Amino acid sequence: MFKRITIIGVGLIGGSIGLACKKRALADEVIGVCRRESSLKKALDARAIDKGTLDIEESLSGAELVIIASPVKKIIPIAKKVMLNVKEGTIVTDVGSAKMYVVEELGKIKNPRGSFVGSHPMAGSEKRGVENARDDMFEKAPIIITKTKNTDRPSVSLLRKFWTRLGGDVSVLSPPEHDTIVSLSSYLPHVVSASISVSQKKDSVAFAAGSLKDATRVSMADPELWKDIFIQARGPVLESIRVFRNKLSVLEKAIRKKDEKKITDILKKAKRVSDRIRR
Amino acid sequence: MFKRITIIGVGLIGGSIGLACKKRALADEVIGVCRRESSLKKALDARAIDKGTLDIEESLSGAELVIIASPVKKIIPIAKKVMLNVKEGTIVTDVGSAKMYVVEELGKIKNPRGSFVGSHPMAGSEKRGVENARDDMFEKAPIIITKTKNTDRPSVSLLRKFWTRLGGDVSVLSPPEHDTIVSLSSYLPHVVSASISVSQKKDSVAFAAGSLKDATRVSMADPELWKDIFIQARGPVLESIRVFRNKLSVLEKAIRKKDEKKITDILKKAKRVSDRIRR
Repeated sequence: MFKRITIIGVGLIGGSIGLACKKRALADEVIGVCRRESSLKKALDARAIDKGTLDIEESLSGAELVIIASPVKKIIPIAKKVMLNVKEGTIVTDVGSAKMYVVEELGKIKNPRGSFVGSHPMAGSEKRGVENARDDMFEKAPIIITKTKNTDRPSVSLLRKFWTRLGGDVSVLSPPEHDTIVSLSSYLPHVVSASISVSQKKDSVAFAAGSLKDATRVSMADPELWKDIFIQARGPVLESIRVFRNKLSVLEKAIRKKDEKKITDILKKAKRVSDRIRR
Repeated sequence: MFKRITIIGVGLIGGSIGLACKKRALADEVIGVCRRESSLKKALDARAIDKGTLDIEESLSGAELVIIASPVKKIIPIAKKVMLNVKEGTIVTDVGSAKMYVVEELGKIKNPRGSFVGSHPMAGSEKRGVENARDDMFEKAPIIITKTKNTDRPSVSLLRKFWTRLGGDVSVLSPPEHDTIVSLSSYLPHVVSASISVSQKKDSVAFAAGSLKDATRVSMADPELWKDIFIQARGPVLESIRVFRNKLSVLEKAIRKKDEKKITDILKKAKRVSDRIRR
């Protein structure tokens, strides 16, 4: 499918992409870029990449697809460098979760050489690092690709084929559509879980029931990573909080008024949604 | 320990108490009360009780401990009947989760014969019915017993011993202390989970990530049961929503202001709490 793919940042996601590409023979060669020699060694040992380098510019030579799988905070500076230094028309994508922000920032680049299409594979785990990478990470995973009026259509088609070949279930959306969906399905649970966790007192932690364990599981996520996501996707995050707060107020009011029918209706609707999510 | 124990409502919890009492030989005889013949048959088949009846008054004869394990909504009418009809000084307890309400309602009874002490075993599962009862249900489970200035001290001691013999980790608290703790550790997760569920849109359900699955798991709970709990424990539920809403506002404001340090501080604190809950 590609002669050479370059993966910048070979951690859990970058490493899984490398393993999956090699297993399915989607590239003659997979080049990996890490920030440290020790990480490169781990990526090579895991056979997630064929060759490695610490130098982004060097890694771009001959690449037909460049995948930025770095920490969220580094996506923009790396993407800017990549977009100005790749061969004309090379497809460049990222795997971050804040799409409006990334597309807007990259739109500011003058005379970009790369053709940027955003990707958001909804896969991963609490585990980190290339040592936890898996070649089946994207099997049946929802993958969203973002498209704007400026996005190159053939690049979208090719990237769609690429993720489909990795096993993903690909949808193409605009960045705002993507961010709205993800704010409800992922950012909101993180905001709310953190707020439930910090609402606890010493005694309620000691008597934690199963429901509290479920509600606070998401708070185990990496604080630095999520701080960066909340900052980058600020608009959609705040909008999802607004929607949630209104729903919470309706339930609160029904409880205050002892409106049994209204409470039951809300809880039944919640149960139906929860059932659908598990289907 | 007791000649005769009567369990009113032989479902998941009532049945597990019966099985555990018989396994540990805490009673010469366990009497079960159900609303239907078919339920009695299931309870006898599961060997959760020695004898069964549909008649509460009949079941009280000779009982030294009466445990009300009925649906939440039935606790008060059943407890009132029991308190007026047991032999003087019989210990009466329930296994519901709203303690201020129960204690307040039972305080209105004139000339009660029974000695009421509230219990709240923090055990159970999504499964229901005596067919899912287990004799080890209370092993290491936190059990809260409630005590007020009017509660008979020897009854508290005996009930504490009883739950300890069933394997529980018993604490004695006042009803308001109990309700405050449980509102944060159990009611709040249910209110918030329902609000997250009803905030979702068709698309966000389709792209549900692991975090949304965790956040909405609690919404699978029985709507009728939780409606009753929210009504009975209205005060503490509303107070826990108030606490949560304030915490949510602090995080929201930090995101709005792009206050990276504040966001990180909150997420780190949330992670520490979440870690403690899992210890």
